[in-house]
Amino acid sequence: MNQIIIQKYGGSSVANTERIQHVTSHIIEQKKKGFSPVVVVSAMGDSTDHLIELAKSITPNPSSREMDMLLSTGEQISISLLAMAIESKGYKAISLTGYQCGIQTDPIYSKAKINEINTERIMAEINADKIVIVAGFQGINSNGDITTLGRGGSDTTAVALAVALNAELCEIYTDVKGIYTADPRVVKDAALMQSISYDEMLELAKLGAKVMHPRSVELARKNNMKLVVRSSFELDHHGTIIKEVKQMEKAQVRGVTLDDNIVRLTVSNVPDKPGIAYKMFSALAAQNVHIDMIIQNLNHDDLNDISFTIPKDELYNVKPTIDAFVQEVNASELLIRTDVAKLSIVGTGITSDATIASGLFGALYQLGINIEMISTSEIKISCIIDEKQANEALSEIHNFFQLNKVL
Amino acid sequence: MNQIIIQKYGGSSVANTERIQHVTSHIIEQKKKGFSPVVVVSAMGDSTDHLIELAKSITPNPSSREMDMLLSTGEQISISLLAMAIESKGYKAISLTGYQCGIQTDPIYSKAKINEINTERIMAEINADKIVIVAGFQGINSNGDITTLGRGGSDTTAVALAVALNAELCEIYTDVKGIYTADPRVVKDAALMQSISYDEMLELAKLGAKVMHPRSVELARKNNMKLVVRSSFELDHHGTIIKEVKQMEKAQVRGVTLDDNIVRLTVSNVPDKPGIAYKMFSALAAQNVHIDMIIQNLNHDDLNDISFTIPKDELYNVKPTIDAFVQEVNASELLIRTDVAKLSIVGTGITSDATIASGLFGALYQLGINIEMISTSEIKISCIIDEKQANEALSEIHNFFQLNKVL
Repeated sequence: MNQIIIQKYGGSSVANTERIQHVTSHIIEQKKKGFSPVVVVSAMGDSTDHLIELAKSITPNPSSREMDMLLSTGEQISISLLAMAIESKGYKAISLTGYQCGIQTDPIYSKAKINEINTERIMAEINADKIVIVAGFQGINSNGDITTLGRGGSDTTAVALAVALNAELCEIYTDVKGIYTADPRVVKDAALMQSISYDEMLELAKLGAKVMHPRSVELARKNNMKLVVRSSFELDHHGTIIKEVKQMEKAQVRGVTLDDNIVRLTVSNVPDKPGIAYKMFSALAAQNVHIDMIIQNLNHDDLNDISFTIPKDELYNVKPTIDAFVQEVNASELLIRTDVAKLSIVGTGITSDATIASGLFGALYQLGINIEMISTSEIKISCIIDEKQANEALSEIHNFFQLNKVL
Repeated sequence: MNQIIIQKYGGSSVANTERIQHVTSHIIEQKKKGFSPVVVVSAMGDSTDHLIELAKSITPNPSSREMDMLLSTGEQISISLLAMAIESKGYKAISLTGYQCGIQTDPIYSKAKINEINTERIMAEINADKIVIVAGFQGINSNGDITTLGRGGSDTTAVALAVALNAELCEIYTDVKGIYTADPRVVKDAALMQSISYDEMLELAKLGAKVMHPRSVELARKNNMKLVVRSSFELDHHGTIIKEVKQMEKAQVRGVTLDDNIVRLTVSNVPDKPGIAYKMFSALAAQNVHIDMIIQNLNHDDLNDISFTIPKDELYNVKPTIDAFVQEVNASELLIRTDVAKLSIVGTGITSDATIASGLFGALYQLGINIEMISTSEIKISCIIDEKQANEALSEIHNFFQLNKVL
């Protein structure tokens, strides 16, 4: 049997007739080379946004079941058009919705997780020599209802299919050339990476690099599925390979990221008694809030200041819980700073090389930038800094670690 | 259990947010009255045309499987929006696609026929007190692929569901008030009928009345399901009831129709030998051409003229077959007249009352209109006349039979 490769095309890659024809030629090339392409497609361009607008024009709070029913049509449109385009070139193709290609999910509408993929139908179509076009982002729950996979959904479909079909490779086509050492819109000499490890990619994605959603990278890592991120617009670039990379002798900074979807909260003058911080953070955990950094400073008179960061878009939901806590434990106040950003450097083993951390802190000091919080893991060092200085810091740190020379 | 009523809303009835909200109120009224509404919806306004354009921008000849995949999204969008609208008013609703509500069809894409409906899911939702919103026009074949039902598809979905669910009534909501004695755009004093028999409705639909497709009327007749055709825009009108009507003592003309999608073909000077006409008509039948009227005139010297009518849009497909026949039997030529129209009067038993036919022919004669062909059945009399005089003839015949006085 031919080797299966998965190709996933994002919305911008199938945004109009011209883009669909362009992508069609590329898919057929793979077929001619003897591969069996299985293609995962997102909804065309901004069609999902239009569907959301349509729903909002009916009601501000549509139920998530009906939203999934609505939004899943976006991918159903693009798969049928792509299949038509391939057929018109004389190749056999078939489009399959989430349920037709056996993508079984849990019952959580709008952010479903894939439970399993029954590959029977897809395999039959591959064996019938067809190019299979799969609707990304969608599945079906045990009730027979359409679910969508939430953010990064189509990438997740692609990786999950690659694993289930034992594919050679999973290619993620997007509108950028691959993974850069920093956001190229901010850092002019950011370099395209040839390859990156799963762990590093995962950190970059979590820390603000928007090309890949952490979820699909995690799934690829767990199953050791080789990913390639590349541009459908510039096919002469081979993009970035994401794969298992053996630890190099020398720890090396691979990329710099900036995340400004962050808010710093400080609860001041909390009595220093055991279990008090636990109380607040478990209340927040119950709300599924992703708490990032935590710092506790012993103040004076047995009073603590507890600072932590959360995503900016969760502030609205979280504030009542924290206000209640402030009252309950008799803390003095809740301070909220939204004008902060998180600057991070990522690279396997970088925290084991003390010169890297001290280099980072020194460079920020030279720029006159105050570091408000620090957190580290084996693979990254993050600093909370003033949002106004963030872009300048990003460029300087990129420069300091000479990332423009990375290949 | 509450009585089930089926309501079908055409594309113009759900064309935008405002129309959807309007329809929502009407559905909820039925629910409040104690009925269990099951609502069948078409795609919004002209969205199906947009999808067809999109496909044509990819390829002039898309495969029918992929077209069905594409077009079925139109109804999926409208059902989810309608369900959201109902939920936003505080009522329970659920949208179901063709496959979710168990509409099993044959495998013929783009003009599938319903084989059976597995009502398990719908019944469960009705019993859970939900207003069920069903995507019209679509089903699923035994392969798990989406099929569409072709012209009149959503009406057929509605009637088939009404039968399967043993509904009280099937209401067809459209943008006209009901069934008229003639096309009200042509005949200014055309009257709205309170009721009409299945047979009469069937003839009217076949002969050019566009409100109902014959297919769904036939299904309703076969199962004695009461249909109501009414306007979703003017809900104070009760529309027209289509039901089994006992034959009245006196035969009566119920409606007048005009069909200009017709072409008259004449093969002249065909040798008058047995089996020759059969040869041509069986070749046409093999092409699934709907041949309507046939006249054979013995000419002279044992030569025949054979005239017949077919739908205008089939001329292109059919012409090579007839040309071949003309050559084969050594006929002299094929004459094609596209400037004709078929005027028909419809009413149960009208051909058994000779005064009706003679009244029709006399009235046309008074107008100086030449009748080129005539065909009759128990329930209708059709005449082929010159297209230029057709609208005038329609009004005059409507007037002659005093149909403006019909209630």
